[in-house]
Amino acid sequence: MRIIGIDPGLACLGWGVIDADQGRIRHVANGQCRSSGPDLAQRLLSLHQQLSDVFATHRPAAAAVEQTFMNRDGVATLKLGQARGIAMLVPAQAGLSVAEYAPNAVKKAVVGVGHADKRQIQHMVRLQMPGVALAGPDAADALAIAMCHSFHAQSAGRLSAALAAAEGRR
Amino acid sequence: MRIIGIDPGLACLGWGVIDADQGRIRHVANGQCRSSGPDLAQRLLSLHQQLSDVFATHRPAAAAVEQTFMNRDGVATLKLGQARGIAMLVPAQAGLSVAEYAPNAVKKAVVGVGHADKRQIQHMVRLQMPGVALAGPDAADALAIAMCHSFHAQSAGRLSAALAAAEGRR
Repeated sequence: MRIIGIDPGLACLGWGVIDADQGRIRHVANGQCRSSGPDLAQRLLSLHQQLSDVFATHRPAAAAVEQTFMNRDGVATLKLGQARGIAMLVPAQAGLSVAEYAPNAVKKAVVGVGHADKRQIQHMVRLQMPGVALAGPDAADALAIAMCHSFHAQSAGRLSAALAAAEGRR
Repeated sequence: MRIIGIDPGLACLGWGVIDADQGRIRHVANGQCRSSGPDLAQRLLSLHQQLSDVFATHRPAAAAVEQTFMNRDGVATLKLGQARGIAMLVPAQAGLSVAEYAPNAVKKAVVGVGHADKRQIQHMVRLQMPGVALAGPDAADALAIAMCHSFHAQSAGRLSAALAAAEGRR
């Protein structure tokens, strides 16, 4: 299954695409979309265009976006919300449902603990995908989000297989 | 000039279209887009589709969106931000720049004072556009935003005409 992870931000939106197959993970691509334009609407439009291009190029079958910290000031939260609206819209336009994971869940899935810093995440992403060239910290976070989704999807798959088997034994 | 005003919200996004010509205002249409869907991404997609349909039907030449209060909790601000991202993206996709007005500026332009309640706004919108059928309070706010933009655009037009005349007299 091809999964895209997205780390939303107005100035810089990270994305990472992986192929996940029965617990094995392969890096496909990663990058960072930087918004440009004279005003907010143009910046959102440029994010939308860049992220739509990523979807057209890599055609992911599943998408996951990081949930957002609320412990910032209102202006920062509003900016992030506007970028996050674009990050959720693009997969929906591609016909995908969008999984959301809290930052701590992503860290726990990838590093093993809920409180890891950005260097630890980059380290684990590099360990899981040897030789990967990371476009930056937001792209590394996005790959971690995609990995988190692959772990959860795999667990969910195992659970439903076990339930189906138990149903068959009745 | 045909102007669309947008009052963004995740549950309900108000819009109002007017024609403004040398200080005269004519109501064209107003409505409220209600987001529906099983998750956030689908709700944002439904807002995007409905608002895009409004643009395709009424083809505004200018767009204005209300700036947002920050005195809410973080969760509400993030939700509003996501809807606002869609409200800014749709006009940008139609090739329009998007003006932004603070709520107090809208009230001052339409009611005459910066602290007016929703009933006063609806009253003034009805006075300016006799016989208008309002789809709801968010649609009334959106019409007020469009009116505010028409006043500002007219003032800016007068100013640049005066400057051009002064330049001509030199």
